[in-house]
Amino acid sequence: MASLRELGEFEVLRRLQRARRADAAAEPDVVVGAGDDAAVLRPGAGADIVVTTDAFVEGRHFLPAWSAPAATGARLAHANLSDLAAMAATPRWALLSIGARPDTDADELVALQSGLAAALATEGAAVVGGNLAAVEGAQWYSLTLVGETPRGRAWTRYGARPGDLLAVSGRPGRAGAGLALARALGEGARAPEWQPLLEAWLAPHAHVALARALRGTGAVTAAIDISDGFAGDLAHLCEASGTGAEVEEAAWPDDPLLVRAAERLGVPLATLRCGPSDDYELLLAVEPGGRADCEAAARAAGVPLAFVGRFTGAPGVLGLAGRDGIMRPLPGAGFDHFDAR
Amino acid sequence: MASLRELGEFEVLRRLQRARRADAAAEPDVVVGAGDDAAVLRPGAGADIVVTTDAFVEGRHFLPAWSAPAATGARLAHANLSDLAAMAATPRWALLSIGARPDTDADELVALQSGLAAALATEGAAVVGGNLAAVEGAQWYSLTLVGETPRGRAWTRYGARPGDLLAVSGRPGRAGAGLALARALGEGARAPEWQPLLEAWLAPHAHVALARALRGTGAVTAAIDISDGFAGDLAHLCEASGTGAEVEEAAWPDDPLLVRAAERLGVPLATLRCGPSDDYELLLAVEPGGRADCEAAARAAGVPLAFVGRFTGAPGVLGLAGRDGIMRPLPGAGFDHFDAR
Repeated sequence: MASLRELGEFEVLRRLQRARRADAAAEPDVVVGAGDDAAVLRPGAGADIVVTTDAFVEGRHFLPAWSAPAATGARLAHANLSDLAAMAATPRWALLSIGARPDTDADELVALQSGLAAALATEGAAVVGGNLAAVEGAQWYSLTLVGETPRGRAWTRYGARPGDLLAVSGRPGRAGAGLALARALGEGARAPEWQPLLEAWLAPHAHVALARALRGTGAVTAAIDISDGFAGDLAHLCEASGTGAEVEEAAWPDDPLLVRAAERLGVPLATLRCGPSDDYELLLAVEPGGRADCEAAARAAGVPLAFVGRFTGAPGVLGLAGRDGIMRPLPGAGFDHFDAR
Repeated sequence: MASLRELGEFEVLRRLQRARRADAAAEPDVVVGAGDDAAVLRPGAGADIVVTTDAFVEGRHFLPAWSAPAATGARLAHANLSDLAAMAATPRWALLSIGARPDTDADELVALQSGLAAALATEGAAVVGGNLAAVEGAQWYSLTLVGETPRGRAWTRYGARPGDLLAVSGRPGRAGAGLALARALGEGARAPEWQPLLEAWLAPHAHVALARALRGTGAVTAAIDISDGFAGDLAHLCEASGTGAEVEEAAWPDDPLLVRAAERLGVPLATLRCGPSDDYELLLAVEPGGRADCEAAARAAGVPLAFVGRFTGAPGVLGLAGRDGIMRPLPGAGFDHFDAR
């Protein structure tokens, strides 16, 4: 155990770089890796590069009492991996910018970076650079992830057309439910029955491979990842595409555990399903004729994919058709970090 | 004037994206710009991409009393541009990750991003994406900058060989002197006589064009930018290259204003020249036969370039030959952000 102040910036950077270099050496397209002014990388011939950045702030995006450094690093990796999945891109290289307090144990940062690198490695990507800055107060980690797609093949948010089907992977709402249980029950949320919901919150998994398989069908017209909740991100996609959407309650996949969580928390099930939740699931617009191909691709990838509605020509109008056949406004606005105090 | 809390995260993101989009539209190789899950970019055929990240934390890397948001943004741009200059890369695309307090005026962030975008635009680069996170305490801005070089042509830190000449651009030490004067004199540092030193600190200019011109000579064997001070970054380059270096005091360019600052501050001139200083100048190793070509390239770029010493075969040994002919250890260790309290 030695703090950043004891070791100094350059020694800590050296330790982080040594750990990175071990990864990056295995990566043939890293021409110059950690330890120079910048990293030099070699994209595939004719590839487009796809770049995203996402940051975690201590106490807001991660709670140290609930997430060890390595798990926090892995989750930050998946937050960024999920953005690339939503573009159907292949992740390649990452840069990690750290704001750390001088009294932080250097091993904590190495552990965070290792958890992050391990998560990236499962998708074929490596940490190739970064920055270390001193802060007071909350620590933060800002990751930039670079991926590739074949030229012109990236998905966007703006391609959905009226009549396209609306599909969603996994079981949206579980991450938000896990966080809500931790807030409401404290240590009680660690009970085995809630474990899958806590894992959805603390150890999410981005659907990089599923996205690539779905891209192969050629049937996906638009995509977004659900990092602000199903309703919020559906609204973002509809805004970009100039469409509305209708969701059918009866088409949602059953999730008895989410039903139990809604009861325990005293909130409507639809609020958990559609409201703020860091799920990192994919929300897709699919050409009607491509449904069977997408279902087959999802089965092959081992990820649930549910067709829960369709896009309409009424811009911005989001409806939920209940089991009673009545259409109501879709509940659950997006999460606003500046309002969540 | 409206705070982030009043406007909400998505409205502020929308304002930042609208401003970005105005820039990015002019950039033909941005396939998908601000407002999607990630940006899609099209590198040149056969190019290597070069990626760096650097962050500014309020109160540490910038002082709001001395630097308006637009100027802080420009300086952050140049900090990153300088890293790409040190690789002889052409800057292309940037992502800005922001940590902002909920009570911050949204216009302040737009101004910061505009200053940053304007500085990038002078070098042909644009902001194509970003992230906005809520923080308490110090605000921070983490920039990731992506550039290109012709395949295999990036400079590194590790190519210097014994016998190579040591060259440095500009007048190292001025930025550190400006900061030291602000700390020592407070408002008195705003006196006209110190203006060039304050500008070196608050409005530095990265040498992107100079680097590209020097790359054309084929004579540069290694490079680093001086963001930690001449001695500290020379040590980094020597460590990477496995060399030492000898600097000749008599070969340094005259800088009467720096002499006056040293007198006013009561510190040795060599400490200002060689010690911690955010100069964003280039430190280069040059093949002896390439000196004239490099001097011509620097003259054409309008940037002073001084040949101040040579690299040696004594790893890590950094000497300063005084006007008296006696060799002493080079003063000025690198700046350590975790120790500078």
